[in-house]
Amino acid sequence: MSAPARSDPDGARSPRRELIEAQIYEQAARLFAERGYAGTTPQDIADAAGVSRQGLYYYVRSKEEILQRLVSAMATEAATRMQAVIAEPIEAPEKLRKLAYLLVVDRASNRTRFRLLDRSESVLPPDLAQDYLNGRRALLKLVTELIDDGIEGGFFRAGDSRVAALSVLGMCNWVAWWFEPSTEHPVEPVASQIADNAVAMLQASAAVNSNSDIREAVQSVRSALNDLDAALS
Amino acid sequence: MSAPARSDPDGARSPRRELIEAQIYEQAARLFAERGYAGTTPQDIADAAGVSRQGLYYYVRSKEEILQRLVSAMATEAATRMQAVIAEPIEAPEKLRKLAYLLVVDRASNRTRFRLLDRSESVLPPDLAQDYLNGRRALLKLVTELIDDGIEGGFFRAGDSRVAALSVLGMCNWVAWWFEPSTEHPVEPVASQIADNAVAMLQASAAVNSNSDIREAVQSVRSALNDLDAALS
Repeated sequence: MSAPARSDPDGARSPRRELIEAQIYEQAARLFAERGYAGTTPQDIADAAGVSRQGLYYYVRSKEEILQRLVSAMATEAATRMQAVIAEPIEAPEKLRKLAYLLVVDRASNRTRFRLLDRSESVLPPDLAQDYLNGRRALLKLVTELIDDGIEGGFFRAGDSRVAALSVLGMCNWVAWWFEPSTEHPVEPVASQIADNAVAMLQASAAVNSNSDIREAVQSVRSALNDLDAALS
Repeated sequence: MSAPARSDPDGARSPRRELIEAQIYEQAARLFAERGYAGTTPQDIADAAGVSRQGLYYYVRSKEEILQRLVSAMATEAATRMQAVIAEPIEAPEKLRKLAYLLVVDRASNRTRFRLLDRSESVLPPDLAQDYLNGRRALLKLVTELIDDGIEGGFFRAGDSRVAALSVLGMCNWVAWWFEPSTEHPVEPVASQIADNAVAMLQASAAVNSNSDIREAVQSVRSALNDLDAALS
């Protein structure tokens, strides 16, 4: 997530503008997390983002607007991108892999914001807290249903799909607590491995889905067994 | 974790005393999380725990002592219990299962404290923050080494053992964010399933560890293949 999208009064969005906006939102999230929402002034945000207070108001209307957009971006953006993955014509394990990958990249890019919003009970006004909670619930529902589909299709082991979904979300979300992005440690290999872990966690052993798959599997296992037996004699 | 252990000046620890102490620590953690450490007074803690301010000082010396013991209990207790599991004469997958189970139960019983301490950067004095960080690092090291052992022993799939350990810790820690303990929803089945998930995530397919195991496996797979083949004809 870069800066949350906003209708620009000038109709123009330059890369420089987007960079400064992203900086404002990231710094505001950090300050809200450290000092609380009430304890953070617009001047604090301007100072941290390296703009004047007047400059700040060129990019955002108010401190309230920053918070509002931080929340709705986190709550809805992730869910929207996940919905797109769910709609793709691919099997459940591949969907789960893509989804976990996207989540890890998102959490790694928005560590401060994610951890801030997670404290929503104490930081957010009630209606925003509700928006955020709804977004979290929608994501959980989506992952749970995907796992249910995968179990039904014989791809995933049977089990409590809600706890399984929360396990997947947990391993992805936790990235916001430990990942330190740098040029030597890009997020992509980490996201790939966690996505593989999520799929491996749920995968039924040797899912076979058509008769020709079965014949092939039978044949390859049989020859492997013969090799193994020969090696033991 | 009940109340962090403390040398009792009277030498006696009654169940009632332990109950009240646990209540004081849990309420203090909640208040520190909501209002910040600086924003919480001893009177607030006494009120929330249902004791008088004078009563509070019968159980604890100061607000500083509460914070100190909350941190050291979270940081060291978990690591100590995990060390005991590591020392047991059982195989790596069984150790990992026990360890994940203990972690989930711990996080579920100490949700507020865990989430509070996780904000250690902004809440804790520097030396306490360092203690807590050291505890977290020790736990990560322990889980990473266990996974390395499991890979070496042929029990676990090869891969980045640190990212795997962080995936396991993530799915266990996340319980502090979503689990609501109640009599209808006890933590044990959830802990069992997450522990199974953690092991399944890492398990190499069909680990066999002795010649007789191999012969048995060969025989049972062969007869299963014959059945499968017969069913297809």
